[in-house]
Amino acid sequence: MNVTIINIGDELLIGQVVNTNASTMSHLLTEAGMAVTRTVVVGDNYKDIWVTVDEALRESDAALVTGGLGPTKDDITKKLLCEYFDSELVESEVALANVKRIFDSRGYELTPVNRAQALVPKCCEVLNNDLGTAPCMWFNTDGKVLVSLPGVPFEMEWLMRNRVIPKLQETFKTDVIIKKNILVQGIGESFLSDLIEPWELSLPENIKLAYLPVAGMVKLRLTARFPNGTNQNNLNSLLPGLYKLASQHIVGEDCETLDELVHKTLIAKGKTLATAESCTGGNIARLLTAQAGASAYFRGGVIAYSNEVKECTLGVKHETIADHGAVSEETVREMVEGVRERLGADYAIATTGIAGPGGGTPEKPVGTVWVAVCSKDKTVTQLMHYGDRRQQTIDRTTNQAYSMLMKLLP
Amino acid sequence: MNVTIINIGDELLIGQVVNTNASTMSHLLTEAGMAVTRTVVVGDNYKDIWVTVDEALRESDAALVTGGLGPTKDDITKKLLCEYFDSELVESEVALANVKRIFDSRGYELTPVNRAQALVPKCCEVLNNDLGTAPCMWFNTDGKVLVSLPGVPFEMEWLMRNRVIPKLQETFKTDVIIKKNILVQGIGESFLSDLIEPWELSLPENIKLAYLPVAGMVKLRLTARFPNGTNQNNLNSLLPGLYKLASQHIVGEDCETLDELVHKTLIAKGKTLATAESCTGGNIARLLTAQAGASAYFRGGVIAYSNEVKECTLGVKHETIADHGAVSEETVREMVEGVRERLGADYAIATTGIAGPGGGTPEKPVGTVWVAVCSKDKTVTQLMHYGDRRQQTIDRTTNQAYSMLMKLLP
Repeated sequence: MNVTIINIGDELLIGQVVNTNASTMSHLLTEAGMAVTRTVVVGDNYKDIWVTVDEALRESDAALVTGGLGPTKDDITKKLLCEYFDSELVESEVALANVKRIFDSRGYELTPVNRAQALVPKCCEVLNNDLGTAPCMWFNTDGKVLVSLPGVPFEMEWLMRNRVIPKLQETFKTDVIIKKNILVQGIGESFLSDLIEPWELSLPENIKLAYLPVAGMVKLRLTARFPNGTNQNNLNSLLPGLYKLASQHIVGEDCETLDELVHKTLIAKGKTLATAESCTGGNIARLLTAQAGASAYFRGGVIAYSNEVKECTLGVKHETIADHGAVSEETVREMVEGVRERLGADYAIATTGIAGPGGGTPEKPVGTVWVAVCSKDKTVTQLMHYGDRRQQTIDRTTNQAYSMLMKLLP
Repeated sequence: MNVTIINIGDELLIGQVVNTNASTMSHLLTEAGMAVTRTVVVGDNYKDIWVTVDEALRESDAALVTGGLGPTKDDITKKLLCEYFDSELVESEVALANVKRIFDSRGYELTPVNRAQALVPKCCEVLNNDLGTAPCMWFNTDGKVLVSLPGVPFEMEWLMRNRVIPKLQETFKTDVIIKKNILVQGIGESFLSDLIEPWELSLPENIKLAYLPVAGMVKLRLTARFPNGTNQNNLNSLLPGLYKLASQHIVGEDCETLDELVHKTLIAKGKTLATAESCTGGNIARLLTAQAGASAYFRGGVIAYSNEVKECTLGVKHETIADHGAVSEETVREMVEGVRERLGADYAIATTGIAGPGGGTPEKPVGTVWVAVCSKDKTVTQLMHYGDRRQQTIDRTTNQAYSMLMKLLP
């Protein structure tokens, strides 16, 4: 079963916003066993939308359309679909009740413009949008399906997960997909591929392995596909073969990112963390604290950008920096031990390096980074050499630190 | 003159990576006065790419294609374009010299696979790719243009800016576009629109105003378009009318984001900054330090997530938190003044709030945030009420803090 995604909006064509809707939808559909064969962005233009919708319904089993559903005059999707399906606009009871519920909850009066949001083509089925006033509309046409969703990302994602994908799975009797992520760090994709080749070749035919590299980390994803109702393989039973070859590089399982893994692990173990960041500038802390519940384990952190702050806030000795430099094993060790003790945490992370583009020397070129983690009893330090791309160095250092922490945790 | 963008790659269709290439290219083309009418993503599939290229050249003046140029067998763009334009693959001297230069600089041997990167269709012109081994290929066909670029984002962006856009402008004699950004904060888009309507209506016809809202901030963008060679309006001469109506909401000009504005302003004024973040968890610091040169002004910061860290690292008094709570004007004031003094900075920022989803109370519901900025002589605090979406609260608080700092700066 294959799908075309159509995202409507002038703001996408002028590059004002990044089209995250396409990747979110592609990701969710792929996870659910459906193949996205094409995604198209068009502007708020009647003819362009019509041609694109028409083509999508010719070439695919389903077309999912986002955008153009707001109450303003730019938003023409509903009118266009009404004409495309040769239908008429009628007030949907379901959609009206939803608009009223949302306005009531906010204490607003319902204006005619808002009430008009409940108008939908007579031939469609309304899928209730719990998070907003724009209706989600499902059209059946010659064994194919078109779904129109609002373009607001959190409404779209909620509708995809809770309304659209379950109904597509039911309609097209799609295969069951199960997945497992294994997070690997500290080895390049091609070396990893060579290392685990014998295991990869031994995988059953209905199981696919993907390498998803990001910022110094590789996410291995196993995906198994079965016709609905048949027995499902247990993906965990395949793992011992992988661990036999690559256990020293595997950091964890069942998470999308290393920050998610650290977050869940510290909560599960009831341990606390403090951070002392120089070259990462707060990135290690902000990824953890972006996740709900971080206060259970995150004590706090110091962004020790200047040498004075390393000394006064973390207790790094003046001589240490004078003798060895701010980017040195001695300094990162005092940073990590200092922040753990001063902030009263079980574990700590520290980074110091030259993110560039300036500040490099022949001995310590741009991209030189020291990373450290420690517990009460043990400190581990590591020297890294990244390139001269600032954001990449920040992102790789961040993943390196999370990975070292995971290895230190009991 | 209108353009279709085609991004090739299976990784885009499974939602593994977000298609930032489309938005970067759209943005650069729009800035250069060209209209993007459609962007299409297709997989590494011969027929799909052929059909999409063919359609793009029928419907647009130019088609820009990214991806599928690597040395592996998945990458079929070059072979396909060779057949599409009925040409043959030949070794390009320009491309070979470039591949050799890059391998020499890395000290690698040139293998046959790498040398094959210099093969291009005979009918194309090679635009030199200074940053990578994949060639950028320009095809003229019946008054239209197709350009094939590598999909690696930083190579693509460099080629767009330095090779492709200048050559498109020359070929199609496009209009000149000039732009000016004005950053506005603390007023919603619709209120702002009402407030400045008289000024907006008075703008000359060749000047467009766009409202670009993001995380509690609105970027106003003025765009003027002229035929090449005619006199250009001076956009700055239009600003007094805007300031007359909305000066109290205008934070700055000529930047894309408030973090960029703060970064440039502090460097220009030679002033230093320290941060004390609770609910923003390091986000304020990491956006500043992601920019090259931040060490000129950023002393450091404290991420004071737990109450103990607020006390021991920032000197917030135990009674202050006990009497007023961690999310209070009294606490944020002691945080901002404490961090400025302890880290020896000219200015400081502090945040404390309940980002949620947990931790709210009837008196202080989720989304309650205190923000403060201070200099040696003055402290300003502000209470905000955001909603229950954690990341949105973090992003809005961040922009609120930058904006308050800009207003405090002399």
